[in-house]
Amino acid sequence: MRLSQGVEWAVHCCLLMAWLPPTATVSATTLAEYHGVPRPYLAKALQALSRAGLVATTAGRSGGYRLARRPQEITLFDVVNAVEGDQPAFRCTEIRQNAPFPAPERCYRKSCGVAVAMWRAEQAWRDSLAEVTIAALVDTYRDNGPVPPAVQQRNADWLTERTGQSHG
Amino acid sequence: MRLSQGVEWAVHCCLLMAWLPPTATVSATTLAEYHGVPRPYLAKALQALSRAGLVATTAGRSGGYRLARRPQEITLFDVVNAVEGDQPAFRCTEIRQNAPFPAPERCYRKSCGVAVAMWRAEQAWRDSLAEVTIAALVDTYRDNGPVPPAVQQRNADWLTERTGQSHG
Ligand code: FES
Ligand code: FES
Repeated sequence: MRLSQGVEWAVHCCLLMAWLPPTATVSATTLAEYHGVPRPYLAKALQALSRAGLVATTAGRSGGYRLARRPQEITLFDVVNAVEGDQPAFRCTEIRQNAPFPAPERCYRKSCGVAVAMWRAEQAWRDSLAEVTIAALVDTYRDNGPVPPAVQQRNADWLTERTGQSHG
Repeated sequence: MRLSQGVEWAVHCCLLMAWLPPTATVSATTLAEYHGVPRPYLAKALQALSRAGLVATTAGRSGGYRLARRPQEITLFDVVNAVEGDQPAFRCTEIRQNAPFPAPERCYRKSCGVAVAMWRAEQAWRDSLAEVTIAALVDTYRDNGPVPPAVQQRNADWLTERTGQSHG
């Protein structure tokens, strides 16, 4: 079982957008360059965030992406779900019905106990992700921030030079 | 994110072995036939269970598989972990270090907050799976058992005809 690499990229893009002023926009090219990831792949992740309504896009020369909701209102679950989709990780193929002597179909209306337990575990995973907001992750970065302030400032400047303003 | 199909097969094989008398053994061929799945693929899942010490194999004409521990001592986590491996679903590539102005390496000794939150969620998933034993799943089958007793008996007979006795 493996989550796509786009999850790490998408979360870090959200962190970066949460760090910028709310109306600032940042292009896919800048996000890709900042994170050192290939733009076409990152664009796919950004489109997933956009489809899920987590980021808004503005067109034009200074267009780009910004968070569509406040960082307090976006959870890690929202981002993972946007990138990975909401299909369960465990897919029951109703193997129980393959027994040499299967029961009538109506007997299988209730989900198999194995599948129920597997899905309950996935729900625990989702619940845990839903407890963490982008805002809380930004704070973690700030609190534990091992990056020296001078380095942080240079990154901030690099970014600010490349951001536009949304008029949407 | 998707779990391999082998998980469903492996769990149902364990349920079936838990259903048999403790010393009875069942061959990969019989397990594959019972569950209507291709033997070569199922064999891979059974080998994973064997490597993890969850099933024991006996050689010879009447050889086959049986549970190596009591059904109360095997959890859903044990089975999933055996089949899927223990690699985390979320892999951090240290994308944070790709910033235009990275901090000195020592600043990144502590894991990224995003990765920590992702792994915490995976732990919640594992914890949930670890709460469910094969014995409990067998009980679920018994309690909710929608399969008419006559059908169950025919399946049991089909199976008993094909099981050997372990002398290990
Ligand atoms: S039939 Fe699919 S998990 Fe049991
Ligand atoms: S650097 Fe990998 S999750 Fe943050």
